[in-house]
Amino acid sequence: MLDLMSQRWEGRSLLAQLPSDVRECLVSRARTRIFPRGATICLQGESARALKIVTRGWVKLYRISETGQEALLETLCAGQSFDEIASLMGGECPSSAETLCECEIMFIDLATACSCKNAVAEITKAVMAAASDHMLDMMDQIEALKSRSGVERLSEYLVALSEDTDGTHEFMLPYDKVVLAAKLGMKPESLSRAFARLKSVGVKSELKRVVIQDVTKLKSMLTENALS
Amino acid sequence: MLDLMSQRWEGRSLLAQLPSDVRECLVSRARTRIFPRGATICLQGESARALKIVTRGWVKLYRISETGQEALLETLCAGQSFDEIASLMGGECPSSAETLCECEIMFIDLATACSCKNAVAEITKAVMAAASDHMLDMMDQIEALKSRSGVERLSEYLVALSEDTDGTHEFMLPYDKVVLAAKLGMKPESLSRAFARLKSVGVKSELKRVVIQDVTKLKSMLTENALS
Repeated sequence: MLDLMSQRWEGRSLLAQLPSDVRECLVSRARTRIFPRGATICLQGESARALKIVTRGWVKLYRISETGQEALLETLCAGQSFDEIASLMGGECPSSAETLCECEIMFIDLATACSCKNAVAEITKAVMAAASDHMLDMMDQIEALKSRSGVERLSEYLVALSEDTDGTHEFMLPYDKVVLAAKLGMKPESLSRAFARLKSVGVKSELKRVVIQDVTKLKSMLTENALS
Repeated sequence: MLDLMSQRWEGRSLLAQLPSDVRECLVSRARTRIFPRGATICLQGESARALKIVTRGWVKLYRISETGQEALLETLCAGQSFDEIASLMGGECPSSAETLCECEIMFIDLATACSCKNAVAEITKAVMAAASDHMLDMMDQIEALKSRSGVERLSEYLVALSEDTDGTHEFMLPYDKVVLAAKLGMKPESLSRAFARLKSVGVKSELKRVVIQDVTKLKSMLTENALS
C-alpha cells in the first residue's frame, strides 16, 4: 500500500519534473537524513533554507494554533516534497513537519542551486508545478471539509487507498487512527463512529487493518451520495 | 469596510510586487471587464489563459463536487488575483469563479507578457509570491476548519473585519449570510445559531449589519478559547 501511494506521486514529484542533468546535479549536492518516528523536521516560522523531499516514510505537516491546538494540514508519502516556494524565495516554513514513522528526508539547498544551463529556470518551473499540486490538494481538502460528512470523507480516503481494486481489498492504514482522524478533520471518537457505520456496507477495521468487502459498491455509494 | 479589506491586500497584490516598468507594461496590455452580480468569470477545468485580478467588488472561488454540491473555497476582494500559476504555465483553472456583486476584473494574458528586460523573471517571482499567499490562506482555512468551532470561526472573521478597532464597531458584511456560511464551512442555520450565541457577548446582527459592542473583549475571548 505504501508503494501504491508512492507510485501515485512518482511521476508528479518535483525531481521527476526536472531534466536529468539538473536533477542529477541537485541530488549530488543534496544531503539525506534519517529521522526516527515522532521527530521534528522543521518548525513553522523558521527559515526554510532547504527544499525537503520525503524519500521514505510518512510525514505530517501541521500547525499549532494560538490556543495551543494542533491542526494536521497534510500527510506526505515518499516522492512528495514541501517548503518548495519558501526555499526558492528565501522565506519561512509555512508549517511544521514531523515524522509519522522512521523517515528518510532529502534536503536540497536551492540558494546554492547548481550552475547547469537553465538550472534556475527549470527548478523554478518544477517548484511552481509542485506548488500548483499542493494548491489542488488543499482545494480538494477544503471542498471535502465543507461539503462532505465525516463518513463520506473516510469512505473517500479508503477508496483512494484501494485505487484500481475491484471486489475485496484488505490493507493496512499507513498510520494510526489518531493521525487519520486529524487528517480527515474528525475527532478520534467520530472516526470510530464512522468506521462503525461503514460496517453495514461491508467495511471492517481492527487497529490499522482494513477490509473492504466490495470496493466497487463503496465507490458507487460515494458517487450516489448514499453515505451522507 | 470594503476599503479596509482592500487595503489589507494592496501591498501584497501581484501588481504591487512588480517593478513599475513591468507593471505599467502589463496593465497597458490588460483588458478590463465589468461583470454584473452572479456572473461566471471562468469555470474549473477550462484553459486558464489569463491571470485575473479583482479591481472592484467581491468574487467567490468555488467547486462543484461529483454529487453536484457547491463548495466555496475563497472570497476575493479588490487587489487579490487568481489563476496565477495556471495562466503562467498554460494550465487549467483549478476552480470556478463567480461575482458576488458588480465587479471589475482585469485579465492579463501572461503568454504574451511584455518584453521589458527581466519581465519574465519578475512576473514569475510575483506569481510565486501570490501562490505562496494563497497557500498560506488555504492553510489558515484548513487549520480553522479542523481545529475551531463554527462560533469561533465566525468570531475570528468578525474580528478580522474589525482590525485596528477597539470598543464598539458597526459595519456591513461584504456579502449576504448564505455566502458567509459557505465561506466559514457552516450551514446557513448553523450560522444563525452562531450569531445567536454571540448575542451574549455583545454581537448583534440584522441582515448584513453587524454591531460588536466591544471588539477587544471578543478578541480576548477568542485567544482565551472562551467561545468553544
